[in-house]
Amino acid sequence: MQDLEFTVEDGKLYILQTRNGKRTGFAAVRIATDMVDEKLITKEEAIRRIPADSLSHLLAPIFDRDSVRKANKIATGLAAGPGAATGRLVFNAKDAVELAHRGERVILTRIETSPEDLRGMIAAEGILTARGGVSSHAALVARQMGKVCVCGASALKIDYETQTLSTGELTLKQGDYISIDGTAGEVYAGELKTAASEVVQVLVEKRLDPKKSRIYQEFASLMSWTDKARKLEVRANADLPNQVATAVAFGATGVGLCRTEHMFFEGDRIDAMREMILAQTLDDRRAAVSKLLPYQRGDFVGIFRELKGLPGTIRLLDPPLHEFLPNTEAQQRDLAKKLNVPFERIARRVEQLHEFNPMLGHRGCRLGVSFPEVTEMQARAIFEAAAEVQKSGVKVKPEVMIPLVGFSKELKLQLDIVHRVAKEVAKEQNVKFNYLVGTMLEIPRGALVADELAKNAAFFSFGTNDLTQTTLGMSRDDSGSFLPQYQELEIVRNNPFATIDQQGVGKLMEIACDYAHKTRPDIELGICGEHGGDPESVKFCHRIGLDYVSCSPFRIPVAKLAAAQAALTVR
Amino acid sequence: MQDLEFTVEDGKLYILQTRNGKRTGFAAVRIATDMVDEKLITKEEAIRRIPADSLSHLLAPIFDRDSVRKANKIATGLAAGPGAATGRLVFNAKDAVELAHRGERVILTRIETSPEDLRGMIAAEGILTARGGVSSHAALVARQMGKVCVCGASALKIDYETQTLSTGELTLKQGDYISIDGTAGEVYAGELKTAASEVVQVLVEKRLDPKKSRIYQEFASLMSWTDKARKLEVRANADLPNQVATAVAFGATGVGLCRTEHMFFEGDRIDAMREMILAQTLDDRRAAVSKLLPYQRGDFVGIFRELKGLPGTIRLLDPPLHEFLPNTEAQQRDLAKKLNVPFERIARRVEQLHEFNPMLGHRGCRLGVSFPEVTEMQARAIFEAAAEVQKSGVKVKPEVMIPLVGFSKELKLQLDIVHRVAKEVAKEQNVKFNYLVGTMLEIPRGALVADELAKNAAFFSFGTNDLTQTTLGMSRDDSGSFLPQYQELEIVRNNPFATIDQQGVGKLMEIACDYAHKTRPDIELGICGEHGGDPESVKFCHRIGLDYVSCSPFRIPVAKLAAAQAALTVR
Repeated sequence: MQDLEFTVEDGKLYILQTRNGKRTGFAAVRIATDMVDEKLITKEEAIRRIPADSLSHLLAPIFDRDSVRKANKIATGLAAGPGAATGRLVFNAKDAVELAHRGERVILTRIETSPEDLRGMIAAEGILTARGGVSSHAALVARQMGKVCVCGASALKIDYETQTLSTGELTLKQGDYISIDGTAGEVYAGELKTAASEVVQVLVEKRLDPKKSRIYQEFASLMSWTDKARKLEVRANADLPNQVATAVAFGATGVGLCRTEHMFFEGDRIDAMREMILAQTLDDRRAAVSKLLPYQRGDFVGIFRELKGLPGTIRLLDPPLHEFLPNTEAQQRDLAKKLNVPFERIARRVEQLHEFNPMLGHRGCRLGVSFPEVTEMQARAIFEAAAEVQKSGVKVKPEVMIPLVGFSKELKLQLDIVHRVAKEVAKEQNVKFNYLVGTMLEIPRGALVADELAKNAAFFSFGTNDLTQTTLGMSRDDSGSFLPQYQELEIVRNNPFATIDQQGVGKLMEIACDYAHKTRPDIELGICGEHGGDPESVKFCHRIGLDYVSCSPFRIPVAKLAAAQAALTVR
Repeated sequence: MQDLEFTVEDGKLYILQTRNGKRTGFAAVRIATDMVDEKLITKEEAIRRIPADSLSHLLAPIFDRDSVRKANKIATGLAAGPGAATGRLVFNAKDAVELAHRGERVILTRIETSPEDLRGMIAAEGILTARGGVSSHAALVARQMGKVCVCGASALKIDYETQTLSTGELTLKQGDYISIDGTAGEVYAGELKTAASEVVQVLVEKRLDPKKSRIYQEFASLMSWTDKARKLEVRANADLPNQVATAVAFGATGVGLCRTEHMFFEGDRIDAMREMILAQTLDDRRAAVSKLLPYQRGDFVGIFRELKGLPGTIRLLDPPLHEFLPNTEAQQRDLAKKLNVPFERIARRVEQLHEFNPMLGHRGCRLGVSFPEVTEMQARAIFEAAAEVQKSGVKVKPEVMIPLVGFSKELKLQLDIVHRVAKEVAKEQNVKFNYLVGTMLEIPRGALVADELAKNAAFFSFGTNDLTQTTLGMSRDDSGSFLPQYQELEIVRNNPFATIDQQGVGKLMEIACDYAHKTRPDIELGICGEHGGDPESVKFCHRIGLDYVSCSPFRIPVAKLAAAQAALTVR
């Protein structure tokens, strides 16, 4: 589609200029598929012509146009999770869950979010924050869940005490209706009408007949063309069975990152996790850990069933333990009462676990090295689930991923536990299952000793979020104070947390791939950072010869299209 | 010197085994120099026979033996700064400075130290902490200053409120005498007799006639032999003129790292620095910055005079700004009164500057990019000082070092300022001086784009402290919770913050040297992390072809001996 500029002078037509017309994702897909139908272009050309990012429009829920026209816009922020959402204003996870249980739609509104808000984010229609960029916690989690998100709406004053949100002119209180448009980054007071996109209605909600949706059919054609063209597999970052189901519906070829710790925040599980952290003896710790086993096993059973034989990469416990303990004294006193332990012990443990730079602290496999019983429990949960599902006639392909590895002995110690447990479970259950054990490359040292690590690891998955932070010496959460200026001054071309920094992080990835292939030519290589859903990064991954990218379920069509474009143009 | 084990059986002598005898640094030096005098071994062989680390014994102050025998040992900790010190117990920098002004010797005793304690550390004879490892802030600064230090003496309960230190049995209060042995890691109640080592009395205190000290003469001979043998230059990390004087007395061939921010903590300077940080307009910031100029210039004049033509590498402002602001509300209220600004502004600025991972935050050249006026002021102070000293007939060789560079445009922006100011000052003062501008390689990306950076940088200095933290994804301050176990399990062979991790960090250094030489064959390469004083690391630096190492003044003899050993054995 072309934009033409012309003039008529003295009865003569002058064509002044022409350029590609700006079009929505809907229009881009329709134009391209129509032209294929009319045999004007090939399927390959159609793939090339659609901006990969614009596919996300097809999946986003939408506001009714009339509603928007009448609505009261109160702020703008960053378009962090596309789509439209409306619901009642809530200021914390607990209220979000409660209201959602009562059948209300809610918009979780926070100054910024943390893992403790996760349950609330799951319960909410949309997430609104006053602080944080497009790679803030809120934005990352929202995109993974396919939730609508507007973040960094800095004009909003959020007061947790009075449970109000104000703009100066207007003050909304908890329970009032609010609406957010995460495609445009806009915030409205009041209730606006929304609907799921047709593609989502067909694939995820399964309440629209595919034959009745023209845009779905066009989308489906395009996806089938990309599947033929692409070389890269496209997996999903998904932590729970329903996320995996969504991912598979969108055509994921596996799960590339299942973050087991997200499972620990659901319901009562967090209490068992906290008991584990507060345990003073190995026996107490083992007892607490064993309470987590059935929960984890149950989740993995659900995940393997949804995967139906596709590979599923499961990352062992990663975040520092202090993320699981409450921060305020009031919360700590509550927890003391609940677990029947002295408040002082909790306060002391929180202080003990405090870190100056948690990003570079006691986390990842360092936890597994310190607490091998946690690794053992997680491996057991994975393999017992694998055995159960395999027995039911559904194939399983678990890939156990050890996080934050930098030293080959560190990996070896964790691998030994995982292999031993796999053998034990196979014997106990009298069943055979295939599995791989590998590691996440997310600190520079891991990439630099990839040849050593590859002796024992069956796969590597680049954790490009952390690899970017360490390679650039730049904290994602703190970079907001200088990164915008860095983009303005053209020190960086893109936000390195959104698009892979090819010259730095990318070079390290190339070095690691090269080293890994020297030791183990058939090693499986992937990427599971947020970059896996970014078209330019996907093309880079194709170019350096990775086997797969992994991204949020709602980014899978984008990644597939980018992968196909890469295969058709990159050599 | 050999340890022999023998037995006599049935009148027959059996030699059972023999091995190198354990000996102090004093004995090692005496044996080796005696054997050279007796023509039993060559000078080269003498160099090889002395464990480099043991030279530090010759520089450390010592406790009188009788005193120790009668003393009451109350705790043990880590031997973090060799030597013996005795003095009055103080719990904060202010009291340390005050008591020292009154002519008292003091032992600064803290749970742990931070840059705010610096003045107190300078004033103290020794530093004692209850927390922190051999690479904690206290230990690093103590070694650089040649101060006695025991850290991590965890049996000590330090109470800032009551100004007491207790062990359960015994409680000492502020002003009581305490003694620490940083060679053995021991803490004694009461006053013990000490003396500076003879080498220090000759070289630094200049109150002992060299001819009257046999150990000094042996030391001097050994040093002259190492100077002939070594290929590496050995520079010093020194921030103030008197530290530079000490370094030159120990034979430093220049300054490899002058941390300009340490100058900001002296006297009233911190107030101007704080004004700069709190400024709300560019003009206010410029005004505050200009107050710092004369202080900085004065320090640099002193440094260049002491250097007498030797090169001096000066690093521009590096730490995050929040390190300069007070943390507690009381301190913030005091500052508000002093600077006549509203308390809320200070509190808000502190909150604004708070970072989740300060190590990976807004620091290094990122500050210079955000606040070019600071870079400009610092460059002006350096070059005005250079002009002044050069005019007085003493040659100067400033090397301006841009910290934390990862991107070539980032370096370029800072370089442009420095070169422009150099030209301006040369013109204003009508004097020519030589200078270099280069960068510190301390994040992996910097090393990976060294070929790009070398287009503009005249030298690289590896900041191996931070490079280790980022390459290993491991915070020095937080690693205490798992690193000891990592050493026990042999995941790491040495503490990577004490000895360069050759396989990881070292590989990155090799890559960077290789890239740098391709772009600029004559580039000057050095290292200025704490590793510069570690013998094994010095040998590694020799092997990869660096031009110099830089370490604390009191480690210079150790580094020189290690450099000579490397040149004699490594090929």
